[in-house]
Amino acid sequence: MRIVITGGCGFIGRRLALKLLEQGSLPNTSGGADEIESLVLFDIGEPTPPIPPDPRLTIVTGDICSATDIHNLIGSNTDVVYHFAAVVSSGAEADFDLGMHVNFDGARTILETCRKLETSPRFIFASSVAAFGGDMPSVIQDDTAKTPQTSYGSQKAMCELLVNDYTRKGFVDGRTLRLPTVVVRPGKPNKAASTWASSIIREPLQGEAAICPVREDQAMWCLSPRRVVDAFVRAAGLPGETIGANRAIGITGTTHTVREMLDALNCVAGKAVVDRVRFEPDADIQAIVSGWPTHFNPVRGAALDFVHDSSMVEIIEAFIEDELDGSFVS
Amino acid sequence: MRIVITGGCGFIGRRLALKLLEQGSLPNTSGGADEIESLVLFDIGEPTPPIPPDPRLTIVTGDICSATDIHNLIGSNTDVVYHFAAVVSSGAEADFDLGMHVNFDGARTILETCRKLETSPRFIFASSVAAFGGDMPSVIQDDTAKTPQTSYGSQKAMCELLVNDYTRKGFVDGRTLRLPTVVVRPGKPNKAASTWASSIIREPLQGEAAICPVREDQAMWCLSPRRVVDAFVRAAGLPGETIGANRAIGITGTTHTVREMLDALNCVAGKAVVDRVRFEPDADIQAIVSGWPTHFNPVRGAALDFVHDSSMVEIIEAFIEDELDGSFVS
Repeated sequence: MRIVITGGCGFIGRRLALKLLEQGSLPNTSGGADEIESLVLFDIGEPTPPIPPDPRLTIVTGDICSATDIHNLIGSNTDVVYHFAAVVSSGAEADFDLGMHVNFDGARTILETCRKLETSPRFIFASSVAAFGGDMPSVIQDDTAKTPQTSYGSQKAMCELLVNDYTRKGFVDGRTLRLPTVVVRPGKPNKAASTWASSIIREPLQGEAAICPVREDQAMWCLSPRRVVDAFVRAAGLPGETIGANRAIGITGTTHTVREMLDALNCVAGKAVVDRVRFEPDADIQAIVSGWPTHFNPVRGAALDFVHDSSMVEIIEAFIEDELDGSFVS
Repeated sequence: MRIVITGGCGFIGRRLALKLLEQGSLPNTSGGADEIESLVLFDIGEPTPPIPPDPRLTIVTGDICSATDIHNLIGSNTDVVYHFAAVVSSGAEADFDLGMHVNFDGARTILETCRKLETSPRFIFASSVAAFGGDMPSVIQDDTAKTPQTSYGSQKAMCELLVNDYTRKGFVDGRTLRLPTVVVRPGKPNKAASTWASSIIREPLQGEAAICPVREDQAMWCLSPRRVVDAFVRAAGLPGETIGANRAIGITGTTHTVREMLDALNCVAGKAVVDRVRFEPDADIQAIVSGWPTHFNPVRGAALDFVHDSSMVEIIEAFIEDELDGSFVS
């Protein structure tokens, strides 16, 4: 089988690719699994660091908004497309046109290209809890209306509708996973308003100082990178009729406050590590983060056996194992 | 002030235009009203029957999908755009690409053109209860998630998100009205699965037979053309802060079963008129109509003082008055 991952050199795309190459197969919707013959990662640039060569692996660079690039990418033998390529929240907010072009038009171009194959390939899309916002209940239910307060969230919510309709029409076999905030992300702090949620774990474990700009009672709906990758593998094998007409699934996660995150860090790594975190309240960031939903009741995601982390301790231990080669600076 | 109505020669556009010319002004968001200097109706063809000439009125024919046509239509002195142009439900279902081009891309082109004015004009959009569907509660609440089961409904729901985001960014001052089924529509039966809801009133009152393809206990969420037009006038004058960040408003209506419709017809016009309706169950139509939501609790629409009809009798009497010159064939 042939799998294409857009945004394949990004954080999640890369991890999914490595996982797929390692396991050698992907679940199909008949209860079995198909051997992976070809895995294509599409992105705007080459992966850094490079991904070890593999005869099954191809890296293609191009523009997600170019119909020609996408046509060349998604050939008639494509069985599954994972669509991760996106401009992040802050980027889509700063440049509305760029966000619409990449996050909405890009997804539409890929859906159209899949449709033209006339084989209804599986199309697996990453949506976000940013699709929620505004006036919300204290706990987000599966049937809570989406009134996003960002362009990024609006574009994701529009794509969810598009994936559902393309699926209903038989153009693709879509499944959309609405992801919690991914914690702990590797790498460096970025401009995202949520960057502290990874920073306050990641930097102290490497002997560096970290700043927490929000209150210690601020909660966050979290899922580890390991569980996110597992969820995308699982999504490929769910029979469509099991998911139902609404192909957008709020997957399971866990809610942790800053205090709980730091308590778990203390438990795993000790007080000296936690002491590298300094609270520097930032009213702007606090205001943005306060607008995010923190508690969810994903009944469908749980019924579809998506698995969340058992604790913040598990999330931190997985990060140390996966990203720090099993050790940290105490 | 200058007002543009797309789909201005259609059923609702035409009625709104006549109403606006008659009253001579449109409410503004400061509690006053502005004199209408120019009213432009944009459509694919001339109105039939012709609209009586008026120095304030201009008819423009063109293509809603043509950026050039829309650019020429929406000049820098445009204060309010009513966007009604759409491919109807059955049309968007039969031709997916046409539906996307007209219902989604058309709305986006108009929003973009309004944005380029840099004056944040009022943009008033007609959405539909077809935005709901699939697994729904027995009563649709304002915060019920939209999982439409038609391409038309998906396109409307996507546009609702777009109007909200364009408003949040200050590109337009948007307000979206989610309309009940408009009953009684004038004219002839069409291919819409809801066409019977008008037919079973309209045809018998003109001495003609009508067929009802659904069960007599089938309910429908209804609003008369008169109230729809009133709602679009009212929408123009609501201050944005009164509406809130979610500019999509489910306006109020009333739920009536076929039996209740015919009882009201009997009350207004007598048994001989009702006897012109014949029940011919159509399983396909019944299946489509059974999937539509029938009961709503539009708390926001009611709080914003949108007015619904007081009874089915009132709806029928308004139809006789407005469309049949006050008389019917008994």
